[in-house]
Amino acid sequence: MRVDEPVTVGIDIGATKILIGSVTRQGDIIHHARYGIDLSTESSLKGSIYRSIADYIHGRREENMSVNIGIGVFGHVDFEQGDWLGTMRVPGMEMIRFRDDLKQRYGMNVAIDNDVHTAALAELHLGKGREYRHFLYVNVGTGIAAGIISDGRLIRGASNYAGEIGHTFVGRDMEQCMCGSSWCLESAASGGGMINRAIRWISDYPDSRLAPLIQSGNITSVDIFREARKGDPLSMKIHKEFIWSIGIGLVNLVNILNPEAIILGGGVMRDSWLLKELSDFIYQNTIGVSRRGLKEISLTELGPQVTGLLGAACLAWDYEKIG
Amino acid sequence: MRVDEPVTVGIDIGATKILIGSVTRQGDIIHHARYGIDLSTESSLKGSIYRSIADYIHGRREENMSVNIGIGVFGHVDFEQGDWLGTMRVPGMEMIRFRDDLKQRYGMNVAIDNDVHTAALAELHLGKGREYRHFLYVNVGTGIAAGIISDGRLIRGASNYAGEIGHTFVGRDMEQCMCGSSWCLESAASGGGMINRAIRWISDYPDSRLAPLIQSGNITSVDIFREARKGDPLSMKIHKEFIWSIGIGLVNLVNILNPEAIILGGGVMRDSWLLKELSDFIYQNTIGVSRRGLKEISLTELGPQVTGLLGAACLAWDYEKIG
Repeated sequence: MRVDEPVTVGIDIGATKILIGSVTRQGDIIHHARYGIDLSTESSLKGSIYRSIADYIHGRREENMSVNIGIGVFGHVDFEQGDWLGTMRVPGMEMIRFRDDLKQRYGMNVAIDNDVHTAALAELHLGKGREYRHFLYVNVGTGIAAGIISDGRLIRGASNYAGEIGHTFVGRDMEQCMCGSSWCLESAASGGGMINRAIRWISDYPDSRLAPLIQSGNITSVDIFREARKGDPLSMKIHKEFIWSIGIGLVNLVNILNPEAIILGGGVMRDSWLLKELSDFIYQNTIGVSRRGLKEISLTELGPQVTGLLGAACLAWDYEKIG
Repeated sequence: MRVDEPVTVGIDIGATKILIGSVTRQGDIIHHARYGIDLSTESSLKGSIYRSIADYIHGRREENMSVNIGIGVFGHVDFEQGDWLGTMRVPGMEMIRFRDDLKQRYGMNVAIDNDVHTAALAELHLGKGREYRHFLYVNVGTGIAAGIISDGRLIRGASNYAGEIGHTFVGRDMEQCMCGSSWCLESAASGGGMINRAIRWISDYPDSRLAPLIQSGNITSVDIFREARKGDPLSMKIHKEFIWSIGIGLVNLVNILNPEAIILGGGVMRDSWLLKELSDFIYQNTIGVSRRGLKEISLTELGPQVTGLLGAACLAWDYEKIG
């Protein structure tokens, strides 16, 4: 790559770290740094973020840096205003006015969005989404959310909250979700939901191979799927409900939005045998025209470590066009 | 209005009639005509449509007519190509190449879409949707479908099939839908679905006030809701499942798409007391951010007789911009 190639700074603010990197238009990360994040109070959070940015920007003055920064965060974002509206992980957090603050400090233009939206933009510009005009990026991790790309554009909705599919209906009289409903996709198919089910249902399956994992507090969805394949009845029950529920959630999305592809990310969907089961369910249960329009269901090829950073840079590029 | 004001020809092709009209940019229909439609064979269908168009165009040569025609039809449409791909109502129907045919005959540009998409465009340009950037137009009639407007644009999807919400999941082990699934919103909440339920369930309710209506073959959803209000148990059961199912379907859409408004059309939702029940369900069950973003749930103010015609003209305007 040419050393004078323009680069965009992407900032990936996660619950455990801040990643900042310089990204070329080809998606090469030519430099990056990792910083700690302090979620204990709003002021410590703000301090850790702004110190990281100051350190990174200070060290990269020589670069041919774009005047646009992209930031991806967890929680709710006001995309129009460039504000981070908050997250339940930081109690009592008020909004952080990223756009105003960074414009004032560095004269840079700032686009900010949530991490699932930025991951969808990473797919659109640098991943499998380059082949499609209409696709869904679906993250199945601790929670479940989607980035909906229609006609090459991210669907944001009225409050930048489009894609919150974790609370769609997959069955009556399930356990109550933190949202208040007792029918949520997340309860049956997120990593957190499946672990809760294992804990809730273990008393009916005292001999389950999950019992010692639950007792040690170290159970993950990977354990549940591994034991399901080995025939553990509790794990099989959770696995079966997982496929059925995420299947229903995605069948609904395909019927509603008629995408060309579903690209799956997040920690839960890493196994290719789960992908096969899920694909079969979706192709068996979607309506004809939309099924025929669905060309691909696959796992993301963007690495989980870099998706946030790339997505943040892609957000800045998108924002150049529309901002 | 000025007599030289430009007008657009809209064509509304329905199962029982063809309406053709000249529509101003303000949505005034300055002239219209109604023609019969013959669905018995593909050739009779095509003949009745093209004769109607020829008659109308011939009689309106003096007008300051736009070179763009918009056509709304039932069934599946290839929006890109301008072809009507078919409908189950005309057995063995091959596609009708409206764009090619009408371009060749009259030198006019033709945009064609399905009638729910055109109705959503009518709301966007001439109805309640003028106030919003993000809204859903939902038609609850013989079937159930939506037009999704995001950022002022109609979401079409890969095969112009976006919005087919009638086959989203609202409950396990329901009656089988014509699509093959046994969980469809349409089975519980469309006019046709509710009538099927009345017929299917009447044997358990021999004294139901619906019995004579079923026997006469003249039952409608209006009858079911009327008898539900009077306390007829079978009607109450169907009504209760209607509210729950259409409620779940729309809660899902609000959570997925974060719209500012839901505008309801179609024969089933005409009663304002149904609207009240449905609104309460939606506001009680959507997630917080999306609920707060939802400013309005209401019935369309566009008359059912003219929506198709206005929507077809709006489609032509939209197509001018993107075609």
